[in-house]
Amino acid sequence: MSDHVYKVIELVGSSTQSSDDAIEQAIAKAGQSLHHLDWFEVVETRGHIVGNKIGHYQVKVKIGFRLD
Amino acid sequence: MSDHVYKVIELVGSSTQSSDDAIEQAIAKAGQSLHHLDWFEVVETRGHIVGNKIGHYQVKVKIGFRLD
Amino acid sequence: MSDHVYKVIELVGSSTQSSDDAIEQAIAKAGQSLHHLDWFEVVETRGHIVGNKIGHYQVKVKIGFRLD
Amino acid sequence: MSDHVYKVIELVGSSTQSSDDAIEQAIAKAGQSLHHLDWFEVVETRGHIVGNKIGHYQVKVKIGFRLD
Amino acid sequence: MSDHVYKVIELVGSSTQSSDDAIEQAIAKAGQSLHHLDWFEVVETRGHIVGNKIGHYQVKVKIGFRLD
Amino acid sequence: MSDHVYKVIELVGSSTQSSDDAIEQAIAKAGQSLHHLDWFEVVETRGHIVGNKIGHYQVKVKIGFRLD
Amino acid sequence: MSDHVYKVIELVGSSTQSSDDAIEQAIAKAGQSLHHLDWFEVVETRGHIVGNKIGHYQVKVKIGFRLD
Amino acid sequence: MSDHVYKVIELVGSSTQSSDDAIEQAIAKAGQSLHHLDWFEVVETRGHIVGNKIGHYQVKVKIGFRLD
Amino acid sequence: MSDHVYKVIELVGSSTQSSDDAIEQAIAKAGQSLHHLDWFEVVETRGHIVGNKIGHYQVKVKIGFRLD
Amino acid sequence: MSDHVYKVIELVGSSTQSSDDAIEQAIAKAGQSLHHLDWFEVVETRGHIVGNKIGHYQVKVKIGFRLD
Amino acid sequence: MSDHVYKVIELVGSSTQSSDDAIEQAIAKAGQSLHHLDWFEVVETRGHIVGNKIGHYQVKVKIGFRLD
Amino acid sequence: MSDHVYKVIELVGSSTQSSDDAIEQAIAKAGQSLHHLDWFEVVETRGHIVGNKIGHYQVKVKIGFRLD
Repeated sequence: MSDHVYKVIELVGSSTQSSDDAIEQAIAKAGQSLHHLDWFEVVETRGHIVGNKIGHYQVKVKIGFRLD
Repeated sequence: MSDHVYKVIELVGSSTQSSDDAIEQAIAKAGQSLHHLDWFEVVETRGHIVGNKIGHYQVKVKIGFRLD
Repeated sequence: MSDHVYKVIELVGSSTQSSDDAIEQAIAKAGQSLHHLDWFEVVETRGHIVGNKIGHYQVKVKIGFRLD
Repeated sequence: MSDHVYKVIELVGSSTQSSDDAIEQAIAKAGQSLHHLDWFEVVETRGHIVGNKIGHYQVKVKIGFRLD
Repeated sequence: MSDHVYKVIELVGSSTQSSDDAIEQAIAKAGQSLHHLDWFEVVETRGHIVGNKIGHYQVKVKIGFRLD
Repeated sequence: MSDHVYKVIELVGSSTQSSDDAIEQAIAKAGQSLHHLDWFEVVETRGHIVGNKIGHYQVKVKIGFRLD
Repeated sequence: MSDHVYKVIELVGSSTQSSDDAIEQAIAKAGQSLHHLDWFEVVETRGHIVGNKIGHYQVKVKIGFRLD
Repeated sequence: MSDHVYKVIELVGSSTQSSDDAIEQAIAKAGQSLHHLDWFEVVETRGHIVGNKIGHYQVKVKIGFRLD
Repeated sequence: MSDHVYKVIELVGSSTQSSDDAIEQAIAKAGQSLHHLDWFEVVETRGHIVGNKIGHYQVKVKIGFRLD
Repeated sequence: MSDHVYKVIELVGSSTQSSDDAIEQAIAKAGQSLHHLDWFEVVETRGHIVGNKIGHYQVKVKIGFRLD
Repeated sequence: MSDHVYKVIELVGSSTQSSDDAIEQAIAKAGQSLHHLDWFEVVETRGHIVGNKIGHYQVKVKIGFRLD
Repeated sequence: MSDHVYKVIELVGSSTQSSDDAIEQAIAKAGQSLHHLDWFEVVETRGHIVGNKIGHYQVKVKIGFRLD
């Protein structure tokens, strides 16, 4: 593992369910075009309010993946 | 939307259920006296411990709403 | 309460369930050897990705407890 | 001046003109209902993009004013 | 306590005496119009210099109070 | 909007005109190869000095765009 | 001094007197069980409000001490 | 360029015109007594409010210059 | 006041008395060689421990003064 | 140089040799697919421990390169 | 790995050799009394100056280890 | 030591050798015109890339020295 290089990208996932699910959405999207996804870090949790309730969560995450 | 001004207030919501629910509690309270709630940003997540379990979550959020 | 001193330690809890549960895991572990656990503060939320899904959450928390 | 207390509120001003003008919009709005506005501090500068150009600036400012 | 919501406001207290007294001034002022003041957090300590001495301290504090 | 995922990239725009124009330059460049540019956030404002004047502004911005 | 290793712990001291005294309380407590206490760093100053006055200060400090 | 050492000083420039002009004022002042001014970094943007308008901008900048 | 430029320097004042006095010591020293001292901002509060008590406070402050 | 736009990416380089070498590894990898690499900024230095020694360094760096 | 809890401690290692070696010194010390050391994070790099040279480096690191 | 005042300046040292050496370069330069250099703190580590390798390191350090 010591000789690998990882790239870290930043995505914002959205979910009407939960803040955890918003992270899952971002990871699922990243996995459609990238390989070797390895870890995530939550950068910011926010969201929109609709009718005095959380309309959807927006979680900004960094996602790290190994470069070949 | 470009000519609006928004005010941002800071609330701490509590919940025995989940950190997400603590956000909902803060928003619901804000909605009792304010109109046009638009977005929230999580500032800090903490809570009290009771009997070696989470007694309740306390989530500090900024809530933005449009001024008329 | 004004004449107490509290110690604050830092733990990383893991969970395959949710970020909230990862906090619970850290608190439960701390409770095995420490008394008077009083509050927690989330420092960092991250986790590992397995198969383009969240493998497990890792939440770094500070836990405060009263010294006798 | 040493015996005054100031309140600090947070507003987000918008402008299609410039980031400086977005600050002016927030201050003008605050001035409609508050007296003794004294200073501002820029907290965050962001904005929306429309057609690959800045649609409008959104500047979050803290505004301090003297309490009577 | 788990079902309460708190509001957090930001004030700047001034004092010619000490930085601690500047906090007291801010709290005293807040208490004139708000109920259930619960805690404070120091955000910033600064002040003006007069004749190569501290003219007065200015301490920016967040003050949390319970909403009914 | 709740089921979208956004990517956030970081660019540094330069301009001899103004700090606002440096943001525009970064957005214009991003728009040459990306679709659905949605928002920007200013990360850092700096620049080079030439002959005791601002030679050019360099503004580091995050730019968010919707993934298809 | 160059070949020593120091451990840094985090305590919260409380005092009804002053923020400085809250630091002293934390250090005194640490000194009951640890040797070679060397320096402190203030991390956070906060406190509880009782009757619109400071009930007690709570100062979070890091305390460094030399390991034998 | 690799064997140079730079000094970085901090100035606050003021301007009734714009935040960009406040940076220029700080640089112009620095240039009266220093040589080889090379770059600036904006640290903080604030200002005074007069009559519900921006009275003047105050921009705190770091200015780097090469030591001979 | 709008056309002035201020320089900001960083000093560490020490005191066996109090954290406030450590600020005074730094300002007094600055005043021996500089004119027009205008404001201070506390950057960091720390100190040395001697015999399980605060030996002396060390407060890092930024001091702003007007350039002629 | 004033009319260029730069992109900034984030990589994590690993090395069993040194923290400086971990930066080199990240840059070398970036250079395999990108042109005009211009500067780097260290974001975070960490690493794994194996047998009570540093197994390998992991340095997160931002790398800036000019867009054509 | 998902059901482990880790403790994170903070040490300051010193070295006359290099900043990397100061990290090694901290880890070696931690390894004398703790098992399962897993990772480190550099928090702060500083040091003392002797005769206009670096006398020794002092690197503050967080060290994470698995609790049994 | 308790009655001393220290000044803290900020320099950027450069080196083609290592990040540690860049610190030494800054300190050596400071030592040419200042006495009683006492400690340094690393603020930022960055550098230029030449030919997909580190051309030179640029380390921004704060240097503290005792005022007479």
